[in-house]
Amino acid sequence: MLLRGQMMDRPLLLAPLMEFAAMCHGDTPIVTRSVEGPLHRTTYGETYGRIQRLANALVRLGVKPGDRVATLAWNTWRHFELYFAIAGIGAVCHTLNPRLPPDQLKFIINNAEDRLIFFDLTFIGLIAALDNVSPSVTETIVLTDVAHIPDDPRFQSVLVYEDLIAPEPDTFTWPTFDERTAASLCYTSGTTGNPKGVLYSHRALILHSYALATNISVTAEDVSLPVVPMFHVNAWGMPYSAPMSGSALVFAGAAMDGPSLFELMDTEGVTCAQGVPTIWIGLLDQMRALGRKPSALTRVTVGGAAVPESMVDAFERDFGVEVCHGWGMTEMSPAGVINTPKAKFKKLSAAEQKKRKLKQGRLLFGVDMRIVDGAGKVLPNDGDSSGHIQVRGPWIIESYFKETQSALTPDGWFDTGDIGTLDTDGFLQLTDRAKDIIKSGGEWISSVELENAAVGHPGIAQAAVIGVAHPLWQERPLLICVAKGAARPSLADLNAFLLTKVPKWWLPDALEFVDSLPLGATGKVQKTLLRERFRDYHLEA
Amino acid sequence: MLLRGQMMDRPLLLAPLMEFAAMCHGDTPIVTRSVEGPLHRTTYGETYGRIQRLANALVRLGVKPGDRVATLAWNTWRHFELYFAIAGIGAVCHTLNPRLPPDQLKFIINNAEDRLIFFDLTFIGLIAALDNVSPSVTETIVLTDVAHIPDDPRFQSVLVYEDLIAPEPDTFTWPTFDERTAASLCYTSGTTGNPKGVLYSHRALILHSYALATNISVTAEDVSLPVVPMFHVNAWGMPYSAPMSGSALVFAGAAMDGPSLFELMDTEGVTCAQGVPTIWIGLLDQMRALGRKPSALTRVTVGGAAVPESMVDAFERDFGVEVCHGWGMTEMSPAGVINTPKAKFKKLSAAEQKKRKLKQGRLLFGVDMRIVDGAGKVLPNDGDSSGHIQVRGPWIIESYFKETQSALTPDGWFDTGDIGTLDTDGFLQLTDRAKDIIKSGGEWISSVELENAAVGHPGIAQAAVIGVAHPLWQERPLLICVAKGAARPSLADLNAFLLTKVPKWWLPDALEFVDSLPLGATGKVQKTLLRERFRDYHLEA
Repeated sequence: MLLRGQMMDRPLLLAPLMEFAAMCHGDTPIVTRSVEGPLHRTTYGETYGRIQRLANALVRLGVKPGDRVATLAWNTWRHFELYFAIAGIGAVCHTLNPRLPPDQLKFIINNAEDRLIFFDLTFIGLIAALDNVSPSVTETIVLTDVAHIPDDPRFQSVLVYEDLIAPEPDTFTWPTFDERTAASLCYTSGTTGNPKGVLYSHRALILHSYALATNISVTAEDVSLPVVPMFHVNAWGMPYSAPMSGSALVFAGAAMDGPSLFELMDTEGVTCAQGVPTIWIGLLDQMRALGRKPSALTRVTVGGAAVPESMVDAFERDFGVEVCHGWGMTEMSPAGVINTPKAKFKKLSAAEQKKRKLKQGRLLFGVDMRIVDGAGKVLPNDGDSSGHIQVRGPWIIESYFKETQSALTPDGWFDTGDIGTLDTDGFLQLTDRAKDIIKSGGEWISSVELENAAVGHPGIAQAAVIGVAHPLWQERPLLICVAKGAARPSLADLNAFLLTKVPKWWLPDALEFVDSLPLGATGKVQKTLLRERFRDYHLEA
Repeated sequence: MLLRGQMMDRPLLLAPLMEFAAMCHGDTPIVTRSVEGPLHRTTYGETYGRIQRLANALVRLGVKPGDRVATLAWNTWRHFELYFAIAGIGAVCHTLNPRLPPDQLKFIINNAEDRLIFFDLTFIGLIAALDNVSPSVTETIVLTDVAHIPDDPRFQSVLVYEDLIAPEPDTFTWPTFDERTAASLCYTSGTTGNPKGVLYSHRALILHSYALATNISVTAEDVSLPVVPMFHVNAWGMPYSAPMSGSALVFAGAAMDGPSLFELMDTEGVTCAQGVPTIWIGLLDQMRALGRKPSALTRVTVGGAAVPESMVDAFERDFGVEVCHGWGMTEMSPAGVINTPKAKFKKLSAAEQKKRKLKQGRLLFGVDMRIVDGAGKVLPNDGDSSGHIQVRGPWIIESYFKETQSALTPDGWFDTGDIGTLDTDGFLQLTDRAKDIIKSGGEWISSVELENAAVGHPGIAQAAVIGVAHPLWQERPLLICVAKGAARPSLADLNAFLLTKVPKWWLPDALEFVDSLPLGATGKVQKTLLRERFRDYHLEA
């Protein structure tokens, strides 16, 4: 008969994490480029007091355990306070993505049955547009103080955050509950069907933060700037892993352009930052313009999309800033892999090291991963066999919010919808999204690899590849580009260049130029719109 | 009503940790100075196959879930295999301390009701002495192969490890069970009463490993040498945190003297090592003799006792090896604090930085800590208020093995028996063991601080301080020393030196020289024996 261990049965909860940060890192700074304009400075210690005021205010407003409380906000110290106060009282912090169209937001708010919405000044238009659509919403609260409320009638019916928390006591007795209790909620903006909610537990978020520390070393010597929005999958867990490690935090507010980011990093001594590739394009432009990196910056973590080799070279070779690739998704809290090197890599040639650096990263302990083919057969982890990436673990989704049906395969794995390989070192390399891969005569062509190769051409700024119908091969790649300058390279030019990077039979059959690529709410190219636009594209046999 | 998160409910277990290491770090080396003599080389991948063979063998020998299986062994790859195979099948890996006297070992084996004992060749005498005392023990297994069995009749009745596992299949279907299930058992060698068992759960050991990663960065670029014995509190968790991070492992077997350790570190490229101060004295002697550090060594983690300043200086200033202090105990799995710096420390003077470096370390998230006075009142974390250190968390003991009575205070904290301070940066500084502190006229004198100061004197090799009865002050300090050379400094000499380090009223009232200090099974000075010896020591008023 199994024997039960005799250790304390203490649950993994978020409120004690902030209590810990206040106790051990009370004077560690949290600096924000506020939505109102000026830099705002606080500390973990002060913030913990304000979190307790907010917890009292939430209870006074009638928020009950299990209730959903929404945020429509940039990365700021106030948003950070909401993360912990809402979850701390046993309610659910539901981060809304302000880049979604209003009708999708309405659907999501109604589906989540949000009780309150906390929003930044910039989103008053969106809040006004949502009015009267969500019977569950009893109050909206603007994240500012009275002095900054514009003379605008739309603010008459909203509460003011600083007024709300000011009269409250700065102590709160946190309830203790099961660590599997929901703490936050984030909807995936699927390309088909309605958005679906992912309901994270305290346990999942704490374990995820611990696991990040095994592969990415944000420490008490760091100043971290999560550029990734707090409305996007818990800002990759940074609001939890920073207080856990004692790293200082810098928030960019609404100013995520290259010059603003550079200035903030430079003046605040940011050592590491986290964001999607599009953000880094802007920062790199500014670094090139000024001919230097932000003073203390040592590394950037990149996720959300594959990093082009040219971006790694720019950061590492030109500016001495290390690039660390990561991969995951909303359903994974989000992290599954982080690209950190192994001792043996030092003995490899520069080219071989680069090859590993460009992979998405190495598995974190806690995430099980397997690669399966179209028939569900598990493929070897040989770095070569490409298939559907399936994952399993305590911070991976079991089922979507309000759905009783499992989101998993019959044998309990979550299919990520990504295609990739896994090597003997535990490194994942993405090949494509399952729905974006181009099936040419029974073989797979990776749209992602073609795109990354294409943007290496000096005449190409951005590129997207989609499959179009072909009379002989079923599908063949169409390359859609935004040109860098006035001159547009020819297909022959581009293919000569691509041939140095990809197999000959991958070369696109056609090339189209567009003024811009359609981007979704999380900054990714919306290939569904491109497929729609080029649906009747004609390729010769 | 609380809402349950919708993430997968996967338990935190040890077998999947080794499966992970085999998958992601299959060729990462595990090198051992074997008990038989030669260096032994294997990998996580090979080891995982052998662990599965061993799991099959254990089941064949009749080991059931919940059974205790004992080890009496040095740090080797085979001991590492036992850690995972025993826990993996749901049984309990009970590490016996071979330095305990046979009658204590008998008591412990009987109390644990061990089913099997796996032992190293060197311990045949101990095994023979234990014969027929533990009716629960059905087999003893020597950790070697047939070729290395000496021609000694005492080996006739024992099984041979390599023979046991060789015929077994190298695959095993690990059972899944509650993460609170017991995985390992370690007895504390208390100074009073019988030893008591601490029964660690899978959950505690996994969380402990994750938490270590937040403050101590053993990575896939490291080669770690845990000198701390595997029979001593899970070797500080290294057998779990190394495979979690992908660090290579080097085991010293029975050869823990300075020259052997140096050679092993030097030839195997060890980057970090973990052990008690007495071990580092030996290593430092060898480093001084050779005039250099082991080739790749960058840092040593020190725990088990306070590190004297002179040792920090020797490692850091003389050889460029970073010293990282840690603190914990058997009842804490063991880690509670690890000394890693904060960004703001860089702005401090060297002296102020050193002051922080000599503290035991900074709290890990997951361990709650408070300082209480003799009346149970919680003291402020001001770095100055000294009191009883109490802890709480998921890898802290709830009750001792086979005891139903809680080991905690009425409000649920574990009193560590240590006295110390906690500062606003979350750093713990030990003052003393509660039972060793010297109570002089209502004030406390730290025996530990006096000892560490005394060994800084050039004429003193080792020092112990105990309180002896005093007609006026109740207790006063007696300094007991081992001299470094032939010349023995006088009390006046020593006190003149000590006065630069401690308050005047702390100065010892008397000085005695001994040839050696009595050491306990874990290498600590046994002050109970000193108190016994100097019980009638006479101090003038």
